[in-house]
Amino acid sequence: MSHIFKQHLQKFISVSEEEFEAILSYFKTIHVSKKEILQQEGKICRWQYFVLTGCLRKFMTNEKGVEVTTEFAIETWWLSDNRSFELQAEALFSIQAVENSEILTIDSQSMEKLYQDFPIMERYFRFVYQRAFAAYQMRIKYLYTFSKEDYFFHFYDSYPQFAQRIPQYLLASFLGLTPEYLSELRKKRVTATDR
Amino acid sequence: MSHIFKQHLQKFISVSEEEFEAILSYFKTIHVSKKEILQQEGKICRWQYFVLTGCLRKFMTNEKGVEVTTEFAIETWWLSDNRSFELQAEALFSIQAVENSEILTIDSQSMEKLYQDFPIMERYFRFVYQRAFAAYQMRIKYLYTFSKEDYFFHFYDSYPQFAQRIPQYLLASFLGLTPEYLSELRKKRVTATDR
Repeated sequence: MSHIFKQHLQKFISVSEEEFEAILSYFKTIHVSKKEILQQEGKICRWQYFVLTGCLRKFMTNEKGVEVTTEFAIETWWLSDNRSFELQAEALFSIQAVENSEILTIDSQSMEKLYQDFPIMERYFRFVYQRAFAAYQMRIKYLYTFSKEDYFFHFYDSYPQFAQRIPQYLLASFLGLTPEYLSELRKKRVTATDR
Repeated sequence: MSHIFKQHLQKFISVSEEEFEAILSYFKTIHVSKKEILQQEGKICRWQYFVLTGCLRKFMTNEKGVEVTTEFAIETWWLSDNRSFELQAEALFSIQAVENSEILTIDSQSMEKLYQDFPIMERYFRFVYQRAFAAYQMRIKYLYTFSKEDYFFHFYDSYPQFAQRIPQYLLASFLGLTPEYLSELRKKRVTATDR
């Protein structure tokens, strides 16, 4: 499945087959089962994860002991507790597999060595972070602008396949809704589409 | 004031005096007056801004016509509508000077040329975006976890000088509070500190 990573690299940088094989050797491929925990809140986050197939989620546990999902990652998305990874500080988030998944992982020492040996990877990750940051700015805009109901409709219309694929209780937690209210909103949307 | 930029570069990369002068030549220095608009929502964002002195804010206008501030930038912070800058698409945000400010600016063509001529700048901006992204993840955590009141107290305690420096109606707009309620919360905090 490493061709998925190669295709993603080639969206941003140009690497030969030989270079790609060398770059790939800094990563490990792991297979995780649905619901498996990859990273626990409070522990140092030692890995960055790139999803080849499947789906991961990032979450935290709020004061009431309720899990709140703050991010999902499907194919070609990176996921990590970035602050914890960079500073090797306690993670504020946990990471769990939502589906059986095949994941590329890299630890911080290998990452730094990769940057030294292949400076072109600075450019690749500059783009990855630049886009991730821009996406978060959009998200802040939505959180400040939309009601929870509007946010649901926006999300549902923008990412219909994703909204279908994710377990509904996790989608509810991501959108800040109760599962019951999410179910009501979905029915509303289906009825509106049927008209 | 360009030494402020040099110091910031040297937090992440090593550049000689000569290289720094060459890098600096890709940027322009501008002076903007308090309340001056640098970027308007709906127009293409052609610039990235690095604050040497002063303060900028990013904001959008919501459905009710009210300005909502989503970001501030003080000394050594970068600010732009990053999605608009990268894709040369219509900006979703406006940018305005909060104080008289001295700003380094760079347009997207010069930025791409800078990356080509000084690949070390890929590393610098990889760090800039990486940290900006991690900071946004923290912010999402706060937005999902804290009540508006708790968010105010957290902000006020974490960045006391910043909270004092920014006009209070802008701080209220950033924290999603009415100016009246912000004023009440500040009094509460002062009273608590006095005890």
